[in-house]
Amino acid sequence: MINRTRIRDALKATEPMESVTVMGWVRTRRDAKDFSFVDLNDGSCLSGLQVILPGDLPDYDRWIGEITTGASLQVQGHLVASQGKGQRWELQASAVQLMGRSDASYPLQKKRHSPEFMREMAHLRPRSNLFGSVFRVRSRLAQAVHRFFSERDFFYIHTPIITASDCEGAGELFRVTTLDPSRGGDPTKDFFGKPSYLTVSGQLAAETFACALSNVYTFGPTFRAENSNTSRHASEFWMIEPEMAFCDLGGDMDLAEAFVKYLIQDTLDQSAEEMAFFDAFVDKGLLERLRWILERPFERVAYTQAVDILLQSGQRFEYPVQHGLNLQSEHERFLTESHFKGPITVYDYPKAIKPFYMRANDDGQTVAAMDVLVPGIGEIVGGSQREERLEVLESQLRAHDLSLEDYSWYLDLRRYGSVPHSGFGMGFERMLMFLTGVTNIRDVIPFARTPGHASF
Amino acid sequence: MINRTRIRDALKATEPMESVTVMGWVRTRRDAKDFSFVDLNDGSCLSGLQVILPGDLPDYDRWIGEITTGASLQVQGHLVASQGKGQRWELQASAVQLMGRSDASYPLQKKRHSPEFMREMAHLRPRSNLFGSVFRVRSRLAQAVHRFFSERDFFYIHTPIITASDCEGAGELFRVTTLDPSRGGDPTKDFFGKPSYLTVSGQLAAETFACALSNVYTFGPTFRAENSNTSRHASEFWMIEPEMAFCDLGGDMDLAEAFVKYLIQDTLDQSAEEMAFFDAFVDKGLLERLRWILERPFERVAYTQAVDILLQSGQRFEYPVQHGLNLQSEHERFLTESHFKGPITVYDYPKAIKPFYMRANDDGQTVAAMDVLVPGIGEIVGGSQREERLEVLESQLRAHDLSLEDYSWYLDLRRYGSVPHSGFGMGFERMLMFLTGVTNIRDVIPFARTPGHASF
Repeated sequence: MINRTRIRDALKATEPMESVTVMGWVRTRRDAKDFSFVDLNDGSCLSGLQVILPGDLPDYDRWIGEITTGASLQVQGHLVASQGKGQRWELQASAVQLMGRSDASYPLQKKRHSPEFMREMAHLRPRSNLFGSVFRVRSRLAQAVHRFFSERDFFYIHTPIITASDCEGAGELFRVTTLDPSRGGDPTKDFFGKPSYLTVSGQLAAETFACALSNVYTFGPTFRAENSNTSRHASEFWMIEPEMAFCDLGGDMDLAEAFVKYLIQDTLDQSAEEMAFFDAFVDKGLLERLRWILERPFERVAYTQAVDILLQSGQRFEYPVQHGLNLQSEHERFLTESHFKGPITVYDYPKAIKPFYMRANDDGQTVAAMDVLVPGIGEIVGGSQREERLEVLESQLRAHDLSLEDYSWYLDLRRYGSVPHSGFGMGFERMLMFLTGVTNIRDVIPFARTPGHASF
Repeated sequence: MINRTRIRDALKATEPMESVTVMGWVRTRRDAKDFSFVDLNDGSCLSGLQVILPGDLPDYDRWIGEITTGASLQVQGHLVASQGKGQRWELQASAVQLMGRSDASYPLQKKRHSPEFMREMAHLRPRSNLFGSVFRVRSRLAQAVHRFFSERDFFYIHTPIITASDCEGAGELFRVTTLDPSRGGDPTKDFFGKPSYLTVSGQLAAETFACALSNVYTFGPTFRAENSNTSRHASEFWMIEPEMAFCDLGGDMDLAEAFVKYLIQDTLDQSAEEMAFFDAFVDKGLLERLRWILERPFERVAYTQAVDILLQSGQRFEYPVQHGLNLQSEHERFLTESHFKGPITVYDYPKAIKPFYMRANDDGQTVAAMDVLVPGIGEIVGGSQREERLEVLESQLRAHDLSLEDYSWYLDLRRYGSVPHSGFGMGFERMLMFLTGVTNIRDVIPFARTPGHASF
């Protein structure tokens, strides 16, 4: 197999190249009098390479008609400065080989397609400018996640996907079984000998590792069996959950802010071409907004203060604003978009609306929880300091009607060498939507799973 | 919260430090006449820091008895050159704070525990030398996986965990459901409207992305509902699956060999302390074996040649050796351990024992498959060139009794701009076992899932 030059590398050439071989897919072909232009793309970058097929290539008339949108080609030629507008280099072909044909039934002909149509074509859509860009950015963002934590000496932990415990006692769970769910069967004969589920969070498992290795994080798939069809919910999504021993809520908020900013900066640096595309075609003003966010600290706002701001805003909201109630998406957006005009970190939420494991504050009313809220998205990070006092945690479990026996391993972390520790979760797709301006979560996941949809 | 110095950083100090604060867990305490030694570990590295608690610290007699194995401490003091053997630095404490007590019921007292006992203590075992080391190496290995592909401009793809298609039509699958598997229910009322499963491989989905972005890889959890209780099988494990467009079997074998060697070299470089520990206490000769493997190319052996070697070996095997049959673990180990004395890549396997998607060779008998086999483990990589010819692939699907309709999206990759492409899978835990010498897969997974076991 001939060594190919990736189109990304060809486009970054610093001087003409005598003999280059590229391979890729035809986006378009335009015929001129004595030659044809082909826009060839190999997915290594957003831009394609302009290929000139001279009419005097052997048998030109026989094969030129087969060079159609979607076909795959191998082209050898000279990389020369382009005379045309819009590109610096073009390839003057000296030999062409058609690798795989396409035809008029190819679904991604050069025109705008609806997002719904593209979701039906999830196996082909990464060949388009929009989705190719989304998934290149997604890949670099995942790499940046690992780099951020690696640079800070966090250990990456693979917490289990299949679990017999239900973190937070909340959320609707998928059951995992080897019984036939249409016929039913004895649950003690099931694969794990008891009911098991897909995880909703790796936090509790990550805590066990933080209480041994100090600083750890997870980055893996999590699941919700919620039957909700919104643009922001998927049944399967990836989550990042750092967990730090010897760290309080202040340190947790510091890390979350540094993390969000690192991911923004890295994406602006590493995916400049794609980000310019999103700014132009998906969300005008995206780049300006992200740069604005990078430049200033996230305001830190106590929950009670946030509620006071909402109460005094004179704004009409669909959902009630009241001390003790959860902030709704519209409230979060008002705070970030209208009031603070940037991301904020809200902390010290009412105990009654938060899970059992969050550390009780001395006021008896609130817990050491924090959420990072960003414009356009709302909550992008949710975290807390964890309750490290055995007796307090036990009474919290009882208050939430959870079994002390089921959580005895979790309580062991407080029985033996308990330490203050904190962590948070970030929805990876939420962050990707925030960075790209893409508004439907289905369009930033390779093959999205939502109620009724598990195709491919 | 006071800024702490990680013990790893303290141990790497280049000169004494006036005032240092460390936090961690007590491994042991030894009392001398006027002071106590504490071995303090924070998991940032294998070694602990020797802390000297002088007897003239305030109230020494009152609290020294509480500094027990498993307790957590904050210690301030001077980092000074150690007079004792075995460490360069020690901490002369000027202030001590007990963060969390422990007591005699702490399961990880200083003595050897059986692997079975430690598996029951999976929430505490990362605090031990062995498991702390395993999971630090695991983390660095995962980072190395991402770095290897990032350096080669591969895009990381999150292929779906929940799937309605059964890659390879093989293996036993976990069902994912929101029906109650003990009572049964209408499968069309299930969450996704049809039976869905946990993935056994991301390959087919990765192929769709390779046919758009050229070079991609997956790294995520995969599942097998096999009811087998061996030291090498887990129900949930992580797999790495690169997929390359414009790449044939030769390129695939090149990448696999480079990948295995990169992971060995990186682990030797990044985890030197842990590797010395494994070499001394887990698998004597480990380091020598890994270095030997690094130095030489993997021999490439056609399947027929491998079978001839086995047939002519005079060796007695439990399972039959015969052209056309699969190589068993004992055969693989004979080849790598006795005959070639190193890793080998076996290629061109009989078509009849391989899945439908592997590319048919011109001989009509074999497919362009390859396995990398390593001493002690057997198969560590399995891959192939994929069948890119539409008609051949269709006839293969028929031959395997698979539905052309179910795979129509997969066939589309051959209908529109088909290209030669190749890939492989590596079991992450297998690689980790190979690198650490740990022989039971349950001991390299944070919380292992096996038949009957889904605790924590």
